Amino acid sequence: MEENENDQEPENQDLLQDLSEQGKTAELVEMFEELPTMDVAEFMEEKPLEEVIEYLKKLDLEDQGRIFSDFSIDLQLKLFHELDRRTFAKIFGQMFSDIRADLYQELTKEEQIELLPYLDKKVREDVIILSAYPPETAGGIMTTDFATIFADMTMAEALAKIRKDAPSKDMIYYIYAVDHSMVMKGLVTLKDLVMHDPKTRVNEMLNEFFVYAEVNEDRESVAQKIEKYDLVAIPVLNSLNQLVGIVSHEEAIDIIRKEETEDMEKFMGIMPSEDDEEYMATSSFHHFKKRVVWLVSLAAIGIISGMIINEYQGVLEHFIILAMYMPMMAATGGNTGSQAATVVIRALSLGEINDKDWLRIVFKEMKISFMLSVCVAVLTYLKIAFLSFHAMLPPGFTMSQIAIVISFAISIQVISSAIIGAGLPLVVRRMGGDPAVVASPAITTIVDITGLLIYFTVATLTLGIS
Amino acid sequence: MEENENDQEPENQDLLQDLSEQGKTAELVEMFEELPTMDVAEFMEEKPLEEVIEYLKKLDLEDQGRIFSDFSIDLQLKLFHELDRRTFAKIFGQMFSDIRADLYQELTKEEQIELLPYLDKKVREDVIILSAYPPETAGGIMTTDFATIFADMTMAEALAKIRKDAPSKDMIYYIYAVDHSMVMKGLVTLKDLVMHDPKTRVNEMLNEFFVYAEVNEDRESVAQKIEKYDLVAIPVLNSLNQLVGIVSHEEAIDIIRKEETEDMEKFMGIMPSEDDEEYMATSSFHHFKKRVVWLVSLAAIGIISGMIINEYQGVLEHFIILAMYMPMMAATGGNTGSQAATVVIRALSLGEINDKDWLRIVFKEMKISFMLSVCVAVLTYLKIAFLSFHAMLPPGFTMSQIAIVISFAISIQVISSAIIGAGLPLVVRRMGGDPAVVASPAITTIVDITGLLIYFTVATLTLGIS
Repeated sequence: MEENENDQEPENQDLLQDLSEQGKTAELVEMFEELPTMDVAEFMEEKPLEEVIEYLKKLDLEDQGRIFSDFSIDLQLKLFHELDRRTFAKIFGQMFSDIRADLYQELTKEEQIELLPYLDKKVREDVIILSAYPPETAGGIMTTDFATIFADMTMAEALAKIRKDAPSKDMIYYIYAVDHSMVMKGLVTLKDLVMHDPKTRVNEMLNEFFVYAEVNEDRESVAQKIEKYDLVAIPVLNSLNQLVGIVSHEEAIDIIRKEETEDMEKFMGIMPSEDDEEYMATSSFHHFKKRVVWLVSLAAIGIISGMIINEYQGVLEHFIILAMYMPMMAATGGNTGSQAATVVIRALSLGEINDKDWLRIVFKEMKISFMLSVCVAVLTYLKIAFLSFHAMLPPGFTMSQIAIVISFAISIQVISSAIIGAGLPLVVRRMGGDPAVVASPAITTIVDITGLLIYFTVATLTLGIS
Repeated sequence: MEENENDQEPENQDLLQDLSEQGKTAELVEMFEELPTMDVAEFMEEKPLEEVIEYLKKLDLEDQGRIFSDFSIDLQLKLFHELDRRTFAKIFGQMFSDIRADLYQELTKEEQIELLPYLDKKVREDVIILSAYPPETAGGIMTTDFATIFADMTMAEALAKIRKDAPSKDMIYYIYAVDHSMVMKGLVTLKDLVMHDPKTRVNEMLNEFFVYAEVNEDRESVAQKIEKYDLVAIPVLNSLNQLVGIVSHEEAIDIIRKEETEDMEKFMGIMPSEDDEEYMATSSFHHFKKRVVWLVSLAAIGIISGMIINEYQGVLEHFIILAMYMPMMAATGGNTGSQAATVVIRALSLGEINDKDWLRIVFKEMKISFMLSVCVAVLTYLKIAFLSFHAMLPPGFTMSQIAIVISFAISIQVISSAIIGAGLPLVVRRMGGDPAVVASPAITTIVDITGLLIYFTVATLTLGIS
């Protein structure tokens, strides 16, 4: 992730800062109305709480709700505690419904109960219903800011209804046609409405084969539909096919970011958890729990490495130089295996390759790793032959001989590690699993073991020892 | 990435498959017009080429262009080669402009020159201009399918112009107001147009503080703006502030996916390249080049591990049991360090933490790793004390003594590795770099070295040997 190269943002921030320093409050408030909401929110975020409250008071209620929705959850909570309940309830009523439900869930039970009486009946119901859905489902991320029309209206009637309802958010790219029990019949785009004869009936041009999400559907699946079908928003239906909300494209981006984090964590041997967790907000003990299972399991499997070394104690005692290259053998194998696994897992998840291609992939990795192995082997040979620190050798053996043996072992290690790293995700996908569970630490541990076996087998066979 | 849980897609596919098997061509074609484009494209993708051509012929030109745009690049190229130039040029003229430019660039120079005379002047110019921008810039990913109005029009005139221009794609969520030299003056949403009095002038309600991208701006920065400001599309301006294209939210998702892949590759010591590369389409030699630098560099740094072991040859000869736990020491350190780095890098890139928080982060990692170290140390102690395979010990030393020493060393290793893994990305960010360059293999190599130093220092000090 590179530094934000946004060159407009500082411009807008500077503009606000200048106006604020010059005490031009009227102009400042005008800019609050004109500039992109996020820029205004970020400007206020840096100001003392009293100043933020002053600013908000100068804006009309709709703008207050819009800007408040873009504040960080921290600032939202601070304002909740600072403002009197009645004032807060008014802003709360103007917030975007999905963000409002998220904020509501951050309040304690007592605070929730305290707030509820101040809310309009409609807002109260909306918040309670949205908060009832589990956060990892379509229901948990949807918003109720959408526009509906009835399928039996004419286009002119439909337009009039939309003008009247005027949903708070700009979310009227699609307009959802429902019957009088809110059962979804289809959708029209705002473009359809604008382009067609006002006397046409909505019915006649309804898109009935629309893509939708079910309210209990996993949010990752919802994001995938938005991505696949290039949707601006997807309607969410309950089991009676009633329209209960929509999920918009910005949620999809958010979910994709979280999902990628989860994949990367899995790949590094960190167990994902269902909830969204911020690094600092998560307790150390919870972090510990997410990491300990893999760490201790792998350390336990490491017992096998010890057993192998124990087996070859005699060899090591004679050729203590072999001990010097054990770490490099392990590290190079781990790196090669993890690189291959990374490339294959990403290509699988981006749909570039399929587990059916496994033979071609393994063959390709063999070619790549053969080239890598030549480079590593040459480096190893030079290092041992010329930089061997006068290590002790048993009589009858030359350093060049040892160098060839170790270089040869490391070549085999590089090739076999690449095949293991590329192959494991394919095997897991083949068995119907998620290739991202093939963690890099697991690959490292496996190639540690295979590496030691390769190392000592090559050494004993070629040096004629045992 | 979990399996696609999409439950509608198979439904739509089955519907098409049934109609096709029953030979109900008229109904099938009707469904091609009604169903989501991607479902139709995927259905055709599985059919023989002649059948696809038959299907396309039965559709009107606009639908042909729409469905053709959703085909894979492979199928697009096959159809280019199969169809006569005139027929192909007609479909090509109806494609979405960004996808069309991508396809054009996949053709050979000869094929491009062959195709050009068959194209309308407008299409020809569009394709040539879009192909001229580097693929990693806003220009390289933008589309020219957008709607413009003039700022001095009334809303009614503006609506009439949009109806007349009727841009091919549904991309009229924002309508861009320009002057007569195409210099962008601001934007209105389609909602604004629908909601306001037809006699209002566009001028009066123009959003002049819009977020835009420059045509040479890096595509990652463009995606970040779309994400930050929750845009459906972002206008792209050239250096004269003329509107030259737009980038829509679906491109942002695409870029974010690619960027995450790049980050993960960097983290695993694979050098990213500027071009988009599919796993199979990339040559083995190119894969090799992307991996070899880190691999060989780290193997070279591994020389230090060898030097340390060489230094302690005497100790190893006496306590060959120490050699048995070297791999576990290295692996556990590498895993702990990589876990900590992963968590910190993700939290940095999601904006959850900042490099200014470094002290709190390091302190948190110390707490987490202390808990981890206790678990690993207990495991190690039990393993050595009870599963030590009758390893040879010099007289005067007990296995329990050795077990305590090694467990203690591994505790320090776990804690120091976590601090190194969490600290390095913070240092890089502090120095203005991209934390994702702190590769896991680099951390592994560093903690290999610190691990050996810790190991032998603890052993010599506590066992009173040298």
